[in-house]
Amino acid sequence: MRPSKRAPDEMRPVSFERGVARYAEGSCLVKFGNTHVLCAATLEDKPPPWLRGQGRGWVTAEYAMLPRATHTRTRRESSSGKPSGRTQEIQRLIGRSLRAVTNLPALGERQIVVDCDVIQADGGTRTASITGAWLALHDCFQWMRSRSIIKDNPLRDHVAAVSCGVCNGEAVIDLDYAEDSTAETDANFVITGAGGLVEVQATAEVAVFSEDNLGSMLTLARGGIDKLVQLQKAALA
Amino acid sequence: MRPSKRAPDEMRPVSFERGVARYAEGSCLVKFGNTHVLCAATLEDKPPPWLRGQGRGWVTAEYAMLPRATHTRTRRESSSGKPSGRTQEIQRLIGRSLRAVTNLPALGERQIVVDCDVIQADGGTRTASITGAWLALHDCFQWMRSRSIIKDNPLRDHVAAVSCGVCNGEAVIDLDYAEDSTAETDANFVITGAGGLVEVQATAEVAVFSEDNLGSMLTLARGGIDKLVQLQKAALA
Amino acid sequence: MRPSKRAPDEMRPVSFERGVARYAEGSCLVKFGNTHVLCAATLEDKPPPWLRGQGRGWVTAEYAMLPRATHTRTRRESSSGKPSGRTQEIQRLIGRSLRAVTNLPALGERQIVVDCDVIQADGGTRTASITGAWLALHDCFQWMRSRSIIKDNPLRDHVAAVSCGVCNGEAVIDLDYAEDSTAETDANFVITGAGGLVEVQATAEVAVFSEDNLGSMLTLARGGIDKLVQLQKAALA
Amino acid sequence: MRPSKRAPDEMRPVSFERGVARYAEGSCLVKFGNTHVLCAATLEDKPPPWLRGQGRGWVTAEYAMLPRATHTRTRRESSSGKPSGRTQEIQRLIGRSLRAVTNLPALGERQIVVDCDVIQADGGTRTASITGAWLALHDCFQWMRSRSIIKDNPLRDHVAAVSCGVCNGEAVIDLDYAEDSTAETDANFVITGAGGLVEVQATAEVAVFSEDNLGSMLTLARGGIDKLVQLQKAALA
Amino acid sequence: MRPSKRAPDEMRPVSFERGVARYAEGSCLVKFGNTHVLCAATLEDKPPPWLRGQGRGWVTAEYAMLPRATHTRTRRESSSGKPSGRTQEIQRLIGRSLRAVTNLPALGERQIVVDCDVIQADGGTRTASITGAWLALHDCFQWMRSRSIIKDNPLRDHVAAVSCGVCNGEAVIDLDYAEDSTAETDANFVITGAGGLVEVQATAEVAVFSEDNLGSMLTLARGGIDKLVQLQKAALA
Amino acid sequence: MRPSKRAPDEMRPVSFERGVARYAEGSCLVKFGNTHVLCAATLEDKPPPWLRGQGRGWVTAEYAMLPRATHTRTRRESSSGKPSGRTQEIQRLIGRSLRAVTNLPALGERQIVVDCDVIQADGGTRTASITGAWLALHDCFQWMRSRSIIKDNPLRDHVAAVSCGVCNGEAVIDLDYAEDSTAETDANFVITGAGGLVEVQATAEVAVFSEDNLGSMLTLARGGIDKLVQLQKAALA
Repeated sequence: MRPSKRAPDEMRPVSFERGVARYAEGSCLVKFGNTHVLCAATLEDKPPPWLRGQGRGWVTAEYAMLPRATHTRTRRESSSGKPSGRTQEIQRLIGRSLRAVTNLPALGERQIVVDCDVIQADGGTRTASITGAWLALHDCFQWMRSRSIIKDNPLRDHVAAVSCGVCNGEAVIDLDYAEDSTAETDANFVITGAGGLVEVQATAEVAVFSEDNLGSMLTLARGGIDKLVQLQKAALA
Repeated sequence: MRPSKRAPDEMRPVSFERGVARYAEGSCLVKFGNTHVLCAATLEDKPPPWLRGQGRGWVTAEYAMLPRATHTRTRRESSSGKPSGRTQEIQRLIGRSLRAVTNLPALGERQIVVDCDVIQADGGTRTASITGAWLALHDCFQWMRSRSIIKDNPLRDHVAAVSCGVCNGEAVIDLDYAEDSTAETDANFVITGAGGLVEVQATAEVAVFSEDNLGSMLTLARGGIDKLVQLQKAALA
Repeated sequence: MRPSKRAPDEMRPVSFERGVARYAEGSCLVKFGNTHVLCAATLEDKPPPWLRGQGRGWVTAEYAMLPRATHTRTRRESSSGKPSGRTQEIQRLIGRSLRAVTNLPALGERQIVVDCDVIQADGGTRTASITGAWLALHDCFQWMRSRSIIKDNPLRDHVAAVSCGVCNGEAVIDLDYAEDSTAETDANFVITGAGGLVEVQATAEVAVFSEDNLGSMLTLARGGIDKLVQLQKAALA
Repeated sequence: MRPSKRAPDEMRPVSFERGVARYAEGSCLVKFGNTHVLCAATLEDKPPPWLRGQGRGWVTAEYAMLPRATHTRTRRESSSGKPSGRTQEIQRLIGRSLRAVTNLPALGERQIVVDCDVIQADGGTRTASITGAWLALHDCFQWMRSRSIIKDNPLRDHVAAVSCGVCNGEAVIDLDYAEDSTAETDANFVITGAGGLVEVQATAEVAVFSEDNLGSMLTLARGGIDKLVQLQKAALA
Repeated sequence: MRPSKRAPDEMRPVSFERGVARYAEGSCLVKFGNTHVLCAATLEDKPPPWLRGQGRGWVTAEYAMLPRATHTRTRRESSSGKPSGRTQEIQRLIGRSLRAVTNLPALGERQIVVDCDVIQADGGTRTASITGAWLALHDCFQWMRSRSIIKDNPLRDHVAAVSCGVCNGEAVIDLDYAEDSTAETDANFVITGAGGLVEVQATAEVAVFSEDNLGSMLTLARGGIDKLVQLQKAALA
Repeated sequence: MRPSKRAPDEMRPVSFERGVARYAEGSCLVKFGNTHVLCAATLEDKPPPWLRGQGRGWVTAEYAMLPRATHTRTRRESSSGKPSGRTQEIQRLIGRSLRAVTNLPALGERQIVVDCDVIQADGGTRTASITGAWLALHDCFQWMRSRSIIKDNPLRDHVAAVSCGVCNGEAVIDLDYAEDSTAETDANFVITGAGGLVEVQATAEVAVFSEDNLGSMLTLARGGIDKLVQLQKAALA
């Protein structure tokens, strides 16, 4: 039995609230159960310096947690000098995931920065961030098209993400904090609407895992991503 | 006429939502119009190192803005190494204001950290922070009393804050961003429920100001603080 | 009785020594009793980057203390990475005060940096800095005019500053370190030669203060500023 | 055809030279073709602070590249303030991989730091690092046992790593720099001697990938790891 | 002919003013011509951490320049994060020079920090610093003996320093800024009262130098140090 | 008797291995006994910013040690924020030494960076670095000439370096770590092929030294440099 009484293939309730950040070109408050992330997309007129003059744009992400998003207070990264390795790893993952479904030349020489700020954290903050950031990016592109900044939608597909794990030998989906901290194996999957794999990361936390474990987690993830993409579509409707 | 069509002594709509941060010992989402601040109080078992062994506690605050709280995106302070001078000035002001109404010996050798994170910024973020932080601190103390960690409420009084300014020669209260950026003089007042002054800061932005200007602003501030304290009381009821 | 035996409205002996920094375009060693600050103005050919092309100049200040300016040695800020919040707060205050009496367009696209280095500290270092920095700035402008870099004097008025406090319930002026550390309320006033208020900052240190307290301190400050402006004029004669 | 003319399942020549660092408790110079990494294990008498008093030890890793290990010179991280996100991600991966085969309680309250310094880089530096670090760790444990610091060998198994990729639609193993920079998908596998999966990381660089791609890469990786473990054994013989 | 019209073996006018820092345990304002350095010695009750429990004390130095000590303004090191390499090199040199004539066990488990702050710089700031710091240290030890903190004077001898150079092929002493920036060779000598060499540093700036050059500079330095030690003695009389 | 049983004028075995860094324009692995330094020269197309437009090039150096180059592990400088003062002092010394024999205008508006990374440290790392860096620089210039980037060899002479010391009152050459840590005086000499002095640095570590000591060390250094230059020539043959 999972600590949350959920079935192995049962995700937490997921919701999206678009347009929550008054000043952002696109925004979305995404909730995976008690994990709440505010995603806000900003249009910048210039691409990053290393991309100048190449006729392409860029999509990047920044990630942070409010100090009291967590059970015990976490120290602000502004006090410790620089984003931690974990933070940088997550923001690179979000950026790569969004770029995998974006037609960068169609964006022109511009950059979109998607800020993912965790308001409340109960496991799965990076997967919720990716899934919500896609909606913020979508709305930013819509805003740009409505102002004729770009003509075509640079988004080629949906992208969503979910975590899986092996707990007591069984594969489960969408771990909350309590489950995550005891999982034997921890994995994150980023998958497009068409089912293409963007990122697979599986890590032995307590014990090594088998190909069967990896397969079971991937099957669960596919099911979860299907639901998340349906919910993204519903949020846009 | 003010840009917001408000009367000179008219504050923006103010609201408080208590208990918004699931894991914090006390929390409050405060809104002064489009300025929204999430205040979360954390109990720490130890006082700061320089206060050890003196039989007293401490109350401190940290302040930050989400990057896209503002009209244009603001760079994260974690990328630039250290909180800016403005940030440090604001967090010291919030801390001093809360300590002015706290009986620190009654708190015991503990520290309360109140995080004030600006979700959306439209002027007056520091005054909204102080006013909301008082409720988060109140609820943290209540949480401690309900668990018999302390016996008496260390709060001696309410404290609230409001900004005033001189615009086109006239004193006005609770400036939003548009008004603040054109004000000739900018002031912040922190006042207790009993009317004691905790902090008066008035700065000539465009032109010097007179004692009459200072007096008019102080009168407006007293009226505003009275309303804010009423609203704090209503939120507790 | 004040620890220094001074009357409530009696400032410490004040002196100005112009031209003390051989290489600076303007300089002044200011003494408020045992508080000694070396102020040196530097002309820079370019305005700060964010002001380029606007046909205006800028005046800014930097502030620091020698490690052994104080009773016990203070750690150098170069060892701790960045100026402290207090340092930044003070240097912004000095800069704002000087700009309040400077005609920035008359300065052209240039910047003046006034360095205020505290050689010895006995309370009131920020007010002494402002008062002495005005002379350094004056002499820098004179230097520029004598070389026909500018035609008119960009200074519109004098500016000076003094601290006040409430000690044992009574308002007093120009607190030294011993008095400052026991004051109930601490205030700084920056006022122009014509009597315009530039900055009023009053803070409850031990107990809240009343409007009467604020009024008494302001009256004392006006008297002190009058004397400081007379002394600035005498130093120029 | 691969740029290096190798067959899809053909790794580069691999060699291990043990004992190259005169002062280290264990060391190994590992070469995967033109990728050369110097791994040096250091025994520290104390575990990291957060592990004190728990009767267990810790194994951690640090990773860096000489500035001219690469085709064009890379800036030293000591000039830029802190290890980059990529560096931190790699050193955490090496550490996790080594801990997956280490009996931490058997190590006692001590820490082993394995430094992996890339002398020359031609792709696959993290996989070469893991594979060579295992030998350095092995020799460090042997050194400790020969001095009776520990009684039993804390190593439970071999661990080795290899990269795979999808290039022109085909899965290939052990990519060098030229191949890596054009691969559609990039993956790293860390596997134990007994075949348990420790880490699977697959990333779409240019195009999304399929489950078949993932399966083919995993099959190649298993073959490569078998060879690497044989070579580790030969190096110990 | 030297730019300053001095003879090759002629130093600039040198003066020492003791007791200039009101709060320091020992202090001296030293002038070598237009180079002015304020040296202040601070007694700290504890030795540096790495010396604890060894029954010895330590003498160290910190060095800095006021921003406008120089012809053009120098950026504060507090803005750039850490003392520069040049600053660290100089403060280590001052510390070594003072320790060379100090009986560290006689000092007990204490540390003396001598701050050397350059008020005005015209070449030779490090040699003036060493020569003045010796007097500040002397007076600090005297202060300690007068309070019976130590019994015997830990100073074993005088120490002083002077720069020499080769300009137009000729050896000269005590270079000012104008001469220093055109010298072919630049050297610093630290010598004790008894004539023992503490430090010899000679650097080819424009052209290599010969043993004869080195010998001539050393001869000049001996003469200069003799005068400096006489002046130190006169300042103590 | 020296700890290494060497005669006072006997250096450790010295070797040079050219071309060890596959990607560098010039490289050399230099060994002075157990001190091993990898020197790699990189050609950069631009001079440093402050030299632009002056028709001259620049040669600079960076220096670092692998963490386990030393008997006990040394912390990486990338973890501590900035190169230490010692590191900066050494890299400036290497740069000055190489520039002393380089015709900078002949190099054109380019920069050569020579990285000196200490693989193993047993005393004398800075002198080995200089001596090996000369070969890396030589080969870099040869590489440039073979590609017609420059026409003439900018090198005007050889340069090499060696340490000397006074141990038990006797001058000795090329100290290893054991000898260095007990030497009374420590010195480094940088000398050209033609015998010109580039740098003389002698420091009293335990006791002051005499002119005789300095002379004896210089005589030993001359003999050692002669041998080193012969070995550089042999390595080029």
